[in-house]
Amino acid sequence: MDDILQKARPLFEGIKRHTTLTPECEKKIAAHLTTKVIRRRQYLLHEGQVARAAFVLKGCLRSYSIDENGFEHILQFAPVNWWITDLYSHISQKPSSLNIDALEDSEVVLLSRKDQLDLFDEVPALERYFRIISENSLINNHRRLIDKMALTAKERYLKFCTTYPSLINTLPQKQIASYIGITPEFLSKIRSERG
Amino acid sequence: MDDILQKARPLFEGIKRHTTLTPECEKKIAAHLTTKVIRRRQYLLHEGQVARAAFVLKGCLRSYSIDENGFEHILQFAPVNWWITDLYSHISQKPSSLNIDALEDSEVVLLSRKDQLDLFDEVPALERYFRIISENSLINNHRRLIDKMALTAKERYLKFCTTYPSLINTLPQKQIASYIGITPEFLSKIRSERG
Repeated sequence: MDDILQKARPLFEGIKRHTTLTPECEKKIAAHLTTKVIRRRQYLLHEGQVARAAFVLKGCLRSYSIDENGFEHILQFAPVNWWITDLYSHISQKPSSLNIDALEDSEVVLLSRKDQLDLFDEVPALERYFRIISENSLINNHRRLIDKMALTAKERYLKFCTTYPSLINTLPQKQIASYIGITPEFLSKIRSERG
Repeated sequence: MDDILQKARPLFEGIKRHTTLTPECEKKIAAHLTTKVIRRRQYLLHEGQVARAAFVLKGCLRSYSIDENGFEHILQFAPVNWWITDLYSHISQKPSSLNIDALEDSEVVLLSRKDQLDLFDEVPALERYFRIISENSLINNHRRLIDKMALTAKERYLKFCTTYPSLINTLPQKQIASYIGITPEFLSKIRSERG
């Protein structure tokens, strides 16, 4: 219990950036968390499984879907201090349509939907925190949808560079291309033009 | 006051589908709401203004951005019982990058961010409701992002038909094309192929 309280410290700090959280509430939350180590290229979630919400303590994960033709489409990257899940599966408790794997050696804390809903009753500050991060995620998703419609591939790449400066030099080119929605060859062309 | 309590009834019914709401809480919420009539083609929000959240009582609205070349990109349609806003502007209280106008004669109830935040303290059920509808919107946005990457234009059109059966015969073809992210000419071709 002390171990998970210690490990979940970055999560509690994140919650406290948005709302107040007593040490007693931290203990209540910690009692529902588990940790998991995921080595590079290992999976946190396979398509068809029911998702839990994962908060990244170490490393970097990604969620993606595979289309009929076998192509990967990356929905999200989750570096340290980000949440990642298949939200549809987590909320509905139905099989996921996404895969989540680790891009480097990673560690996460996991929270099941049942435990999350119980905690919302026990610790209203946690519900406030999730309301706020859901709103912020929605804003990012709106921005990304509009960018996909309104910007060229090159403009989307330049935007990715300014939005995720920490990812641009650590992620393989293939992963960035899949997130932006272009081929790796086209991304390579954009990068060489940029000089 | 009685008038707004009566008009906001569909909103209260929506909240009660997700959580419990006492008549006293309904009165507290109603005290912060205003109504507004928007005629067809009139604007609820111009780019540059600060957005409020709007719940649609009658009619249908849409939010869209205009790119450098003057092209419209539709982010969202809001038929009756849906919320619509520029979420970034509403939350940050900064100028919006979206426009919102009415596709037919419409009426909405409006809620400012300040009033919404005050109400979250007064009526925790309202915060729960917004946490839940934010989660559901996120799921829809994830689905739409993946569809944009993984599906063909024709598949996206067929999906639009099953997701929004009520909109498919009421919206101008041009609006649907802009939402799916194709030209009206290409949509026309898909529709004629479908027979």
